[in-house]
Amino acid sequence: MAIILGIDPGSRMTGYGIIRQQGNQLTYLASGCINAAGTARQPLSLAEKLKVIHDGVSELIAQFQPDEFAIEQVFMARNPDSALKLGQARGAAIVAAAQAGLPVAEYAARLVKQAVVGTGAADKAQVQHMVIAMLKLTHRPQADAADALAVAMCHAHNRKQAILMAARRGR
Amino acid sequence: MAIILGIDPGSRMTGYGIIRQQGNQLTYLASGCINAAGTARQPLSLAEKLKVIHDGVSELIAQFQPDEFAIEQVFMARNPDSALKLGQARGAAIVAAAQAGLPVAEYAARLVKQAVVGTGAADKAQVQHMVIAMLKLTHRPQADAADALAVAMCHAHNRKQAILMAARRGR
Repeated sequence: MAIILGIDPGSRMTGYGIIRQQGNQLTYLASGCINAAGTARQPLSLAEKLKVIHDGVSELIAQFQPDEFAIEQVFMARNPDSALKLGQARGAAIVAAAQAGLPVAEYAARLVKQAVVGTGAADKAQVQHMVIAMLKLTHRPQADAADALAVAMCHAHNRKQAILMAARRGR
Repeated sequence: MAIILGIDPGSRMTGYGIIRQQGNQLTYLASGCINAAGTARQPLSLAEKLKVIHDGVSELIAQFQPDEFAIEQVFMARNPDSALKLGQARGAAIVAAAQAGLPVAEYAARLVKQAVVGTGAADKAQVQHMVIAMLKLTHRPQADAADALAVAMCHAHNRKQAILMAARRGR
């Protein structure tokens, strides 16, 4: 049994998804978005934004006590400016996981789609559809939350394979 | 009187410089580098790296009790991959400052050079030379540490101007 926290970081919205894995069984626990954008009247400073992300992830860890943390790997960021902003948000989220002593796993987007839809070329709508179906959700999660659930499901799939392979090797 | 912590973040080396400002007087307190690269035999994971940076900055804050935090603003990162890595390191460092409640100031590289050398077009060697001269250092700091001292000095200069202007306005 393991509780997995998946995170889809962004400089404005950071999606999160928390699932429990028991053998082949995946159970949905929670999902949502950490809003670090502030309001139009009161936009947050960079430091405030990063603290909101860090503290938000820390609170999720305190509340749900996950065993492992999964995040999407970034291979080809679109441009240097968005890569910098995404990096800052990732840094704030990963520090929260590292401080709590959680193992951090990174998965390429292609692997996440492969694990959830069965093909690395799936589009966002297909991923969202499969997340809803596999976790038997009665609501449609926000896009960032669905992505975070998908990376948590990808990690659940991969850690199960790793456990099976270790068992086959007689370890 | 204010103690200023300047940080020059990087995914491998994060430079730091700490100075005390009293009116026109700048006093060198400390500088150096936080090494998040690990060793060739045991390179650190991304999460470990970011924790080293975060915890290193937090320890400096606990030890020197700075009043303010200054960091170089990144305008044009070289490429998306290095921007992502730099962003992650910046995120880890800024979260440490925000957690300690320090005001975070960002300065463009051009402004830092302007404040320390007198021209925004100065090169690294000129910056290093002026850092050594103005802080009356008896040693040559590492390049990243010199950059961190320069950003702290730039902040000292700018906050002094802000205080003078506020005084002139009769505030």
